[in-house]
Amino acid sequence: MRFCRDSVPEPAVRAVVTLVWPGRCAQLLSVWLRRRSRRCGPLTRSFSSEKVIQKDCALPNPSWSKDLRLLFDRFMKKCEDGSWKRLPSYKQFFSKNFQGFQTLYLDPSLVKGEERAQLFTRSFEDGLGFEYVMFYNDAEKRVLCFLQVGPHLQGAPGFVHGGAIATMMDSTTGTCACRAGGIAMTANLNINFKRPIPLCSVVVIDSQLDKVEGRKLFVSCNVRSVDEKTLHSEASALFIKLDPDKSLRKKS
Amino acid sequence: MRFCRDSVPEPAVRAVVTLVWPGRCAQLLSVWLRRRSRRCGPLTRSFSSEKVIQKDCALPNPSWSKDLRLLFDRFMKKCEDGSWKRLPSYKQFFSKNFQGFQTLYLDPSLVKGEERAQLFTRSFEDGLGFEYVMFYNDAEKRVLCFLQVGPHLQGAPGFVHGGAIATMMDSTTGTCACRAGGIAMTANLNINFKRPIPLCSVVVIDSQLDKVEGRKLFVSCNVRSVDEKTLHSEASALFIKLDPDKSLRKKS
Repeated sequence: MRFCRDSVPEPAVRAVVTLVWPGRCAQLLSVWLRRRSRRCGPLTRSFSSEKVIQKDCALPNPSWSKDLRLLFDRFMKKCEDGSWKRLPSYKQFFSKNFQGFQTLYLDPSLVKGEERAQLFTRSFEDGLGFEYVMFYNDAEKRVLCFLQVGPHLQGAPGFVHGGAIATMMDSTTGTCACRAGGIAMTANLNINFKRPIPLCSVVVIDSQLDKVEGRKLFVSCNVRSVDEKTLHSEASALFIKLDPDKSLRKKS
Repeated sequence: MRFCRDSVPEPAVRAVVTLVWPGRCAQLLSVWLRRRSRRCGPLTRSFSSEKVIQKDCALPNPSWSKDLRLLFDRFMKKCEDGSWKRLPSYKQFFSKNFQGFQTLYLDPSLVKGEERAQLFTRSFEDGLGFEYVMFYNDAEKRVLCFLQVGPHLQGAPGFVHGGAIATMMDSTTGTCACRAGGIAMTANLNINFKRPIPLCSVVVIDSQLDKVEGRKLFVSCNVRSVDEKTLHSEASALFIKLDPDKSLRKKS
Protein backbone atom coordinates (compact mmCIF):
# COMPACT_ATOMS: atom_id res chain seq x y z
CA MET A 1 0.00 0.00 0.00
CA ARG A 2 1.33 3.40 -0.86
CA PHE A 3 0.07 6.74 0.36
CA CYS A 4 -0.36 9.46 -2.23
CA ARG A 5 -0.49 13.17 -1.65
CA ASP A 6 -3.94 14.37 -0.67
CA SER A 7 -5.14 10.83 -0.31
CA VAL A 8 -3.47 9.93 2.94
CA PRO A 9 -5.95 9.11 5.68
CA GLU A 10 -5.84 11.79 8.35
CA PRO A 11 -5.25 9.42 11.29
CA ALA A 12 -2.30 7.94 9.40
CA VAL A 13 -0.90 11.37 8.64
CA ARG A 14 -1.26 12.43 12.24
CA ALA A 15 0.24 9.22 13.52
CA VAL A 16 3.17 9.36 11.17
CA VAL A 17 3.99 13.00 11.52
CA THR A 18 3.63 13.31 15.24
CA LEU A 19 5.82 10.28 15.61
CA VAL A 20 8.20 10.30 12.64
CA TRP A 21 9.30 13.67 13.70
CA PRO A 22 9.20 13.72 17.45
CA GLY A 23 12.02 16.18 17.99
CA ARG A 24 10.39 19.01 16.13
CA CYS A 25 7.06 20.30 15.02
CA ALA A 26 4.88 17.26 15.07
CA GLN A 27 1.58 19.04 15.28
CA LEU A 28 2.45 21.34 12.41
CA LEU A 29 0.29 19.08 10.34
CA SER A 30 -2.92 20.26 11.86
CA VAL A 31 -2.82 23.42 9.80
CA TRP A 32 -2.11 21.57 6.58
CA LEU A 33 -4.76 18.97 7.34
CA ARG A 34 -7.33 21.69 7.90
CA ARG A 35 -6.37 23.41 4.63
CA ARG A 36 -6.29 20.13 2.74
CA SER A 37 -9.63 19.18 4.14
CA ARG A 38 -11.10 22.43 2.80
CA ARG A 39 -9.35 21.91 -0.56
CA CYS A 40 -9.92 18.22 -1.10
CA GLY A 41 -12.99 17.35 0.92
CA PRO A 42 -13.06 14.19 3.02
CA LEU A 43 -9.92 12.09 2.86
CA THR A 44 -9.82 8.87 0.93
CA ARG A 45 -7.33 6.07 0.97
CA SER A 46 -5.38 5.09 -2.12
CA PHE A 47 -4.23 1.51 -2.58
CA SER A 48 -1.57 0.21 -4.90
CA SER A 49 0.59 -2.90 -5.08
CA GLU A 50 3.68 -0.96 -4.02
CA LYS A 51 4.32 -1.18 -0.32
CA VAL A 52 5.98 1.48 1.79
CA ILE A 53 7.67 -0.26 4.65
CA GLN A 54 8.52 2.06 7.49
CA LYS A 55 10.37 0.42 10.34
CA ASP A 56 9.50 1.74 13.75
CA CYS A 57 12.97 2.39 15.20
CA ALA A 58 11.69 2.84 18.75
CA LEU A 59 11.27 -0.91 19.28
CA PRO A 60 13.91 -3.35 20.56
CA ASN A 61 16.47 -4.69 18.09
CA PRO A 62 19.38 -7.10 18.68
CA SER A 63 21.76 -4.24 19.44
CA TRP A 64 19.77 -3.17 22.52
CA SER A 65 21.54 -3.90 25.78
CA LYS A 66 19.91 -5.49 28.82
CA ASP A 67 19.64 -2.07 30.50
CA LEU A 68 17.74 -0.57 27.58
CA ARG A 69 15.42 -3.55 27.29
CA LEU A 70 14.62 -3.47 31.01
CA LEU A 71 13.72 0.23 30.87
CA PHE A 72 11.63 -0.39 27.74
CA ASP A 73 9.75 -3.28 29.36
CA ARG A 74 9.13 -1.32 32.57
CA PHE A 75 7.59 1.61 30.73
CA MET A 76 5.60 -0.53 28.31
CA LYS A 77 3.85 -1.83 31.42
CA LYS A 78 3.19 1.75 32.52
CA CYS A 79 1.55 2.35 29.15
CA GLU A 80 -1.16 -0.18 29.91
CA ASP A 81 -3.20 2.22 32.05
CA GLY A 82 -2.76 5.04 29.53
CA SER A 83 -0.68 7.29 31.80
CA TRP A 84 2.39 6.86 29.57
CA LYS A 85 2.54 6.47 25.81
CA ARG A 86 5.39 5.07 23.73
CA LEU A 87 6.30 7.31 20.79
CA PRO A 88 7.16 5.46 17.57
CA SER A 89 9.97 6.88 15.45
CA TYR A 90 10.98 6.55 11.80
CA LYS A 91 13.95 7.33 9.59
CA GLN A 92 12.12 8.95 6.72
CA PHE A 93 9.68 11.76 6.47
CA PHE A 94 7.05 11.21 3.79
CA SER A 95 8.12 14.29 1.88
CA LYS A 96 6.05 13.58 -1.24
CA ASN A 97 2.97 13.33 0.89
CA PHE A 98 3.59 16.62 2.57
CA GLN A 99 4.29 19.11 -0.16
CA GLY A 100 1.32 21.10 1.04
CA PHE A 101 2.74 21.07 4.52
CA GLN A 102 6.17 22.09 3.34
CA THR A 103 4.89 25.04 1.39
CA LEU A 104 3.60 26.48 4.63
CA TYR A 105 7.16 27.08 5.73
CA LEU A 106 9.53 26.83 2.81
CA ASP A 107 9.77 27.02 -0.94
CA PRO A 108 9.76 23.36 -2.12
CA SER A 109 11.79 24.30 -5.19
CA LEU A 110 14.66 25.18 -2.90
CA VAL A 111 14.62 21.90 -1.01
CA LYS A 112 17.68 19.85 -1.86
CA GLY A 113 18.44 16.20 -1.22
CA GLU A 114 14.98 15.38 0.07
CA GLU A 115 14.99 12.01 -1.69
CA ARG A 116 17.93 10.95 0.49
CA ALA A 117 16.84 12.87 3.59
CA GLN A 118 16.79 11.02 6.89
CA LEU A 119 16.07 12.08 10.42
CA PHE A 120 19.48 12.83 11.93
CA THR A 121 18.90 10.77 15.07
CA ARG A 122 17.84 7.73 12.98
CA SER A 123 20.49 7.87 10.29
CA PHE A 124 22.76 5.18 11.73
CA GLU A 125 22.73 1.42 11.34
CA ASP A 126 21.27 -0.48 14.29
CA GLY A 127 23.50 -0.21 17.33
CA LEU A 128 26.09 2.18 15.88
CA GLY A 129 24.46 5.51 16.67
CA PHE A 130 21.45 6.57 18.70
CA GLU A 131 19.29 3.69 19.96
CA TYR A 132 16.39 5.19 21.84
CA VAL A 133 12.75 5.14 22.73
CA MET A 134 10.69 8.00 24.13
CA PHE A 135 7.66 7.81 26.41
CA TYR A 136 5.25 10.70 26.95
CA ASN A 137 3.14 11.46 29.99
CA ASP A 138 0.44 13.95 29.08
CA ALA A 139 -0.68 14.70 32.66
CA GLU A 140 2.88 15.58 33.68
CA LYS A 141 3.81 17.20 30.32
CA ARG A 142 6.92 15.08 30.47
CA VAL A 143 8.98 13.02 28.02
CA LEU A 144 11.43 10.33 29.09
CA CYS A 145 14.00 9.12 26.59
CA PHE A 146 15.97 5.94 27.17
CA LEU A 147 19.13 6.21 25.09
CA GLN A 148 21.93 3.78 24.26
CA VAL A 149 24.90 5.63 22.79
CA GLY A 150 26.63 3.67 20.02
CA PRO A 151 30.33 3.61 19.06
CA HIS A 152 29.87 6.04 16.15
CA LEU A 153 28.98 8.86 18.56
CA GLN A 154 32.50 9.21 19.94
CA GLY A 155 34.03 12.53 20.96
CA ALA A 156 36.90 12.14 23.41
CA PRO A 157 38.16 8.52 23.28
CA GLY A 158 35.78 6.30 25.20
CA PHE A 159 33.19 9.05 25.64
CA VAL A 160 30.18 10.40 23.78
CA HIS A 161 30.59 13.59 21.74
CA GLY A 162 29.02 16.64 23.38
CA GLY A 163 27.14 17.25 20.14
CA ALA A 164 25.49 13.83 20.34
CA ILE A 165 24.29 14.64 23.85
CA ALA A 166 23.05 18.04 22.66
CA THR A 167 21.26 16.32 19.77
CA MET A 168 19.28 14.02 22.02
CA MET A 169 18.53 16.80 24.51
CA ASP A 170 17.21 18.90 21.63
CA SER A 171 15.12 15.99 20.36
CA THR A 172 13.71 15.11 23.76
CA THR A 173 12.89 18.67 24.83
CA GLY A 174 11.52 19.32 21.32
CA THR A 175 9.22 16.34 21.58
CA CYS A 176 8.10 17.51 25.00
CA ALA A 177 7.44 21.04 23.73
CA CYS A 178 5.50 19.94 20.65
CA ARG A 179 3.49 17.30 22.50
CA ALA A 180 2.58 19.62 25.35
CA GLY A 181 2.41 23.01 23.74
CA GLY A 182 2.00 22.74 19.98
CA ILE A 183 4.07 23.29 16.86
CA ALA A 184 7.42 24.79 17.83
CA MET A 185 11.10 25.04 16.95
CA THR A 186 14.16 25.42 19.18
CA ALA A 187 15.14 29.04 19.84
CA ASN A 188 17.65 28.45 22.62
CA LEU A 189 19.42 25.44 24.09
CA ASN A 190 21.66 25.97 27.10
CA ILE A 191 23.53 22.85 28.21
CA ASN A 192 25.74 22.24 31.22
CA PHE A 193 27.95 19.20 30.70
CA LYS A 194 28.66 17.78 34.16
CA ARG A 195 30.15 14.31 33.68
CA PRO A 196 31.07 12.72 30.32
CA ILE A 197 29.02 9.74 29.16
CA PRO A 198 30.95 6.49 28.50
CA LEU A 199 30.52 5.18 24.97
CA CYS A 200 28.00 2.34 24.56
CA SER A 201 26.30 3.01 27.90
CA VAL A 202 22.60 3.67 28.53
CA VAL A 203 21.31 6.94 29.97
CA VAL A 204 17.93 8.43 30.83
CA ILE A 205 16.92 11.84 29.46
CA ASP A 206 14.11 13.39 31.47
CA SER A 207 12.41 16.50 30.11
CA GLN A 208 9.46 18.53 31.30
CA LEU A 209 7.47 21.54 30.13
CA ASP A 210 7.99 24.17 32.83
CA LYS A 211 6.15 27.20 31.53
CA VAL A 212 4.20 28.64 28.60
CA GLU A 213 4.30 32.40 27.91
CA GLY A 214 2.43 33.32 24.76
CA ARG A 215 4.30 31.55 21.92
CA LYS A 216 7.23 30.67 24.21
CA LEU A 217 7.55 27.16 25.61
CA PHE A 218 10.14 26.63 28.37
CA VAL A 219 11.39 23.07 28.79
CA SER A 220 14.02 21.69 31.18
CA CYS A 221 15.96 18.49 30.83
CA ASN A 222 18.62 16.34 32.48
CA VAL A 223 20.64 13.27 31.53
CA ARG A 224 21.36 10.68 34.22
CA SER A 225 22.85 7.22 34.44
CA VAL A 226 20.39 4.32 34.67
CA ASP A 227 21.01 4.01 38.43
CA GLU A 228 20.31 7.78 38.69
CA LYS A 229 23.51 8.27 40.70
CA THR A 230 25.36 10.25 38.02
CA LEU A 231 24.06 13.52 36.62
CA HIS A 232 25.76 13.74 33.21
CA SER A 233 24.18 16.91 31.81
CA GLU A 234 21.34 19.33 32.33
CA ALA A 235 19.78 21.85 30.00
CA SER A 236 17.11 24.49 29.63
CA ALA A 237 15.46 24.99 26.26
CA LEU A 238 13.22 27.64 24.78
CA PHE A 239 10.88 26.78 21.92
CA ILE A 240 8.83 29.21 19.87
CA LYS A 241 5.50 28.16 18.42
CA LEU A 242 5.54 28.55 14.66
CA ASP A 243 3.29 30.88 12.75
CA PRO A 244 1.97 29.00 9.69
CA ASP A 245 1.66 32.26 7.78
CA LYS A 246 5.39 32.90 7.96
CA SER A 247 8.01 31.05 5.94
CA LEU A 248 11.01 29.67 7.79
CA ARG A 249 13.22 30.86 4.96
CA LYS A 250 12.29 34.49 5.16
CA LYS A 251 13.12 36.96 7.88
CA SER A 252 10.09 37.07 10.13
CA MET B 1 53.34 0.41 8.16
CA ARG B 2 51.67 0.00 11.49
CA PHE B 3 52.36 1.96 14.61
CA CYS B 4 52.72 0.01 17.83
CA ARG B 5 52.24 1.29 21.33
CA ASP B 6 55.33 2.94 22.74
CA SER B 7 57.00 2.86 19.35
CA VAL B 8 55.07 5.58 17.61
CA PRO B 9 57.28 8.50 16.56
CA GLU B 10 56.40 11.58 18.59
CA PRO B 11 55.83 13.88 15.59
CA ALA B 12 53.41 11.34 14.19
CA VAL B 13 51.59 11.04 17.48
CA ARG B 14 51.32 14.79 17.81
CA ALA B 15 50.23 15.20 14.21
CA VAL B 16 47.61 12.49 14.45
CA VAL B 17 46.18 13.39 17.81
CA THR B 18 46.00 17.11 17.41
CA LEU B 19 44.27 16.59 14.11
CA VAL B 20 42.34 13.34 14.41
CA TRP B 21 40.58 14.79 17.33
CA PRO B 22 40.24 18.49 16.67
CA GLY B 23 36.97 18.96 18.50
CA ARG B 24 38.29 17.95 21.87
CA CYS B 25 41.46 17.56 23.82
CA ALA B 26 44.14 17.46 21.17
CA GLN B 27 47.05 18.49 23.32
CA LEU B 28 46.22 15.93 25.98
CA LEU B 29 48.97 13.87 24.44
CA SER B 30 51.74 16.06 25.75
CA VAL B 31 51.38 14.58 29.22
CA TRP B 32 51.41 11.03 27.94
CA LEU B 33 54.32 11.73 25.63
CA ARG B 34 56.35 13.15 28.49
CA ARG B 35 55.54 10.15 30.69
CA ARG B 36 56.25 7.71 27.88
CA SER B 37 59.50 9.43 27.12
CA ARG B 38 60.58 8.93 30.72
CA ARG B 39 59.40 5.30 30.66
CA CYS B 40 60.64 4.18 27.26
CA GLY B 41 63.55 6.46 26.45
CA PRO B 42 63.95 7.89 22.93
CA LEU B 43 61.20 6.93 20.52
CA THR B 44 61.79 4.41 17.76
CA ARG B 45 59.72 3.60 14.73
CA SER B 46 58.32 0.13 14.18
CA PHE B 47 57.69 -1.13 10.66
CA SER B 48 55.56 -4.06 9.60
CA SER B 49 53.89 -5.13 6.37
CA GLU B 50 50.44 -4.19 7.69
CA LYS B 51 49.39 -0.74 6.63
CA VAL B 52 47.07 1.59 8.50
CA ILE B 53 45.38 3.80 5.98
CA GLN B 54 43.79 6.86 7.50
CA LYS B 55 41.87 9.01 5.08
CA ASP B 56 42.07 12.70 5.79
CA CYS B 57 38.38 13.67 5.66
CA ALA B 58 39.09 17.41 5.55
CA LEU B 59 40.01 17.31 1.87
CA PRO B 60 37.66 17.69 -1.11
CA ASN B 61 35.70 14.65 -2.25
CA PRO B 62 33.15 14.34 -5.09
CA SER B 63 30.26 15.22 -2.78
CA TRP B 64 31.64 18.70 -2.09
CA SER B 65 29.61 21.47 -3.69
CA LYS B 66 31.06 24.37 -5.62
CA ASP B 67 30.55 26.67 -2.61
CA LEU B 68 32.55 24.41 -0.31
CA ARG B 69 35.35 23.95 -2.85
CA LEU B 70 35.63 27.71 -3.41
CA LEU B 71 35.94 28.37 0.32
CA PHE B 72 38.47 25.56 0.64
CA ASP B 73 40.58 26.91 -2.26
CA ARG B 74 40.44 30.46 -0.93
CA PHE B 75 41.73 29.45 2.49
CA MET B 76 44.34 27.04 1.15
CA LYS B 77 45.88 30.10 -0.50
CA LYS B 78 45.79 31.92 2.84
CA CYS B 79 47.73 29.00 4.33
CA GLU B 80 50.69 29.73 2.06
CA ASP B 81 52.03 32.55 4.23
CA GLY B 82 51.48 30.52 7.40
CA SER B 83 48.81 32.81 8.87
CA TRP B 84 46.16 30.09 8.51
CA LYS B 85 46.54 26.35 8.88
CA ARG B 86 44.24 23.63 7.56
CA LEU B 87 43.38 21.03 10.19
CA PRO B 88 43.25 17.44 8.92
CA SER B 89 40.55 15.20 10.38
CA TYR B 90 40.10 11.43 10.67
CA LYS B 91 37.37 8.94 11.49
CA GLN B 92 39.28 6.75 13.88
CA PHE B 93 41.29 7.38 16.97
CA PHE B 94 44.30 5.09 17.28
CA SER B 95 43.04 3.62 20.52
CA LYS B 96 45.56 0.78 20.67
CA ASN B 97 48.37 3.25 20.37
CA PHE B 98 47.07 5.43 23.15
CA GLN B 99 46.35 3.12 26.03
CA GLY B 100 48.80 5.12 28.08
CA PHE B 101 46.93 8.24 27.20
CA GLN B 102 43.55 6.73 27.96
CA THR B 103 44.60 5.55 31.38
CA LEU B 104 45.20 9.15 32.33
CA TYR B 105 41.48 9.73 32.25
CA LEU B 106 39.59 6.47 32.33
CA ASP B 107 39.84 2.82 33.18
CA PRO B 108 40.54 1.03 29.85
CA SER B 109 38.79 -2.10 31.11
CA LEU B 110 35.55 -0.13 31.16
CA VAL B 111 35.85 1.12 27.60
CA LYS B 112 33.23 -0.54 25.41
CA GLY B 113 32.98 -0.68 21.65
CA GLU B 114 36.34 0.96 21.03
CA GLU B 115 37.07 -1.34 18.10
CA ARG B 116 34.08 0.14 16.28
CA ALA B 117 34.44 3.65 17.66
CA GLN B 118 34.35 6.53 15.21
CA LEU B 119 34.44 10.27 15.63
CA PHE B 120 30.76 11.32 15.61
CA THR B 121 31.25 14.10 13.05
CA ARG B 122 33.06 11.69 10.66
CA SER B 123 30.78 8.69 10.99
CA PHE B 124 28.78 9.23 7.78
CA GLU B 125 29.48 8.20 4.21
CA ASP B 126 30.83 10.94 1.96
CA GLY B 127 28.20 13.59 1.34
CA LEU B 128 25.47 12.21 3.61
CA GLY B 129 26.44 13.83 6.90
CA PHE B 130 28.94 16.47 7.92
CA GLU B 131 31.36 17.52 5.16
CA TYR B 132 33.71 20.07 6.61
CA VAL B 133 37.17 21.50 6.86
CA MET B 134 38.54 23.70 9.62
CA PHE B 135 41.23 26.36 9.38
CA TYR B 136 43.06 27.78 12.38
CA ASN B 137 44.64 31.21 12.78
CA ASP B 138 46.99 31.18 15.74
CA ALA B 139 47.50 34.97 15.91
CA GLU B 140 43.74 35.56 16.08
CA LYS B 141 43.01 32.45 18.21
CA ARG B 142 40.28 31.72 15.71
CA VAL B 143 38.91 28.65 13.94
CA LEU B 144 36.81 28.82 10.78
CA CYS B 145 34.80 25.75 9.80
CA PHE B 146 33.30 25.44 6.31
CA LEU B 147 30.45 22.99 6.58
CA GLN B 148 28.19 21.29 4.04
CA VAL B 149 25.18 19.72 5.73
CA GLY B 150 24.17 16.41 4.15
CA PRO B 151 20.69 14.87 3.81
CA HIS B 152 21.13 12.56 6.81
CA LEU B 153 21.22 15.53 9.18
CA GLN B 154 17.56 16.38 8.78
CA GLY B 155 15.40 17.73 11.60
CA ALA B 156 12.34 19.60 10.37
CA PRO B 157 11.69 18.61 6.72
CA GLY B 158 14.13 20.46 4.48
CA PHE B 159 16.16 21.79 7.39
CA VAL B 160 19.13 20.70 9.47
CA HIS B 161 18.49 19.21 12.92
CA GLY B 162 19.33 21.61 15.76
CA GLY B 163 21.49 18.88 17.26
CA ALA B 164 23.62 18.71 14.11
CA ILE B 165 24.21 22.46 14.36
CA ALA B 166 25.04 22.10 18.06
CA THR B 167 27.45 19.29 17.20
CA MET B 168 29.46 21.36 14.76
CA MET B 169 29.41 24.39 17.07
CA ASP B 170 30.75 22.19 19.87
CA SER B 171 33.42 20.76 17.57
CA THR B 172 34.50 24.14 16.21
CA THR B 173 34.60 25.93 19.56
CA GLY B 174 36.30 22.87 21.07
CA THR B 175 39.00 22.94 18.42
CA CYS B 176 39.45 26.66 19.02
CA ALA B 177 39.71 26.17 22.80
CA CYS B 178 42.18 23.28 22.60
CA ARG B 179 44.34 24.93 19.93
CA ALA B 180 44.47 28.24 21.70
CA GLY B 181 44.31 27.34 25.36
CA GLY B 182 45.24 23.71 25.92
CA ILE B 183 43.54 20.44 26.77
CA ALA B 184 39.91 21.10 27.61
CA MET B 185 36.38 19.70 27.56
CA THR B 186 33.04 21.46 27.09
CA ALA B 187 31.41 22.58 30.33
CA ASN B 188 28.68 24.79 28.88
CA LEU B 189 27.24 25.39 25.44
CA ASN B 190 24.57 28.05 25.05
CA ILE B 191 23.09 28.27 21.55
CA ASN B 192 20.63 30.73 20.07
CA PHE B 193 19.02 29.34 16.93
CA LYS B 194 18.09 32.34 14.76
CA ARG B 195 17.27 31.02 11.29
CA PRO B 196 17.04 27.32 10.30
CA ILE B 197 19.68 25.98 7.92
CA PRO B 198 18.39 24.47 4.63
CA LEU B 199 19.47 20.86 4.13
CA CYS B 200 22.44 20.37 1.77
CA SER B 201 23.57 23.99 1.99
CA VAL B 202 27.00 25.31 2.97
CA VAL B 203 27.55 27.49 6.04
CA VAL B 204 30.50 29.13 7.75
CA ILE B 205 31.14 28.58 11.46
CA ASP B 206 33.38 31.25 12.93
CA SER B 207 34.73 30.76 16.47
CA GLN B 208 37.14 32.74 18.56
CA LEU B 209 38.76 32.45 21.99
CA ASP B 210 37.47 35.46 23.93
CA LYS B 211 38.99 35.04 27.37
CA VAL B 212 41.03 32.75 29.62
CA GLU B 213 40.44 32.74 33.38
CA GLY B 214 42.55 30.14 35.15
CA ARG B 215 41.38 26.78 33.76
CA LYS B 216 38.33 28.39 32.08
CA LEU B 217 38.38 29.07 28.34
CA PHE B 218 35.58 31.24 26.93
CA VAL B 219 34.85 30.81 23.23
CA SER B 220 32.19 32.47 21.08
CA CYS B 221 30.84 31.25 17.78
CA ASN B 222 28.37 32.04 15.01
CA VAL B 223 27.00 30.25 11.96
CA ARG B 224 26.36 32.27 8.81
CA SER B 225 25.43 31.63 5.21
CA VAL B 226 28.27 31.73 2.67
CA ASP B 227 27.22 35.23 1.54
CA GLU B 228 27.26 36.26 5.24
CA LYS B 229 23.79 37.79 4.90
CA THR B 230 22.02 35.26 7.11
CA LEU B 231 22.95 34.68 10.75
CA HIS B 232 21.70 31.16 11.41
CA SER B 233 22.93 30.61 14.97
CA GLU B 234 25.25 32.00 17.59
CA ALA B 235 26.68 30.44 20.71
CA SER B 236 28.92 30.95 23.69
CA ALA B 237 30.89 28.05 25.07
CA LEU B 238 32.87 27.44 28.23
CA PHE B 239 35.67 24.88 28.28
CA ILE B 240 37.58 23.66 31.32
CA LYS B 241 41.19 22.59 31.00
CA LEU B 242 41.59 19.00 32.13
CA ASP B 243 43.72 17.91 35.02
CA PRO B 244 45.68 14.80 33.94
CA ASP B 245 45.79 13.59 37.53
CA LYS B 246 42.01 13.26 37.67
CA SER B 247 40.01 10.55 35.93
CA LEU B 248 37.02 11.60 33.83
CA ARG B 249 35.05 8.72 35.27
CA LYS B 250 35.43 9.70 38.88
CA LYS B 251 33.86 12.63 40.64
CA SER B 252 36.49 15.35 40.64
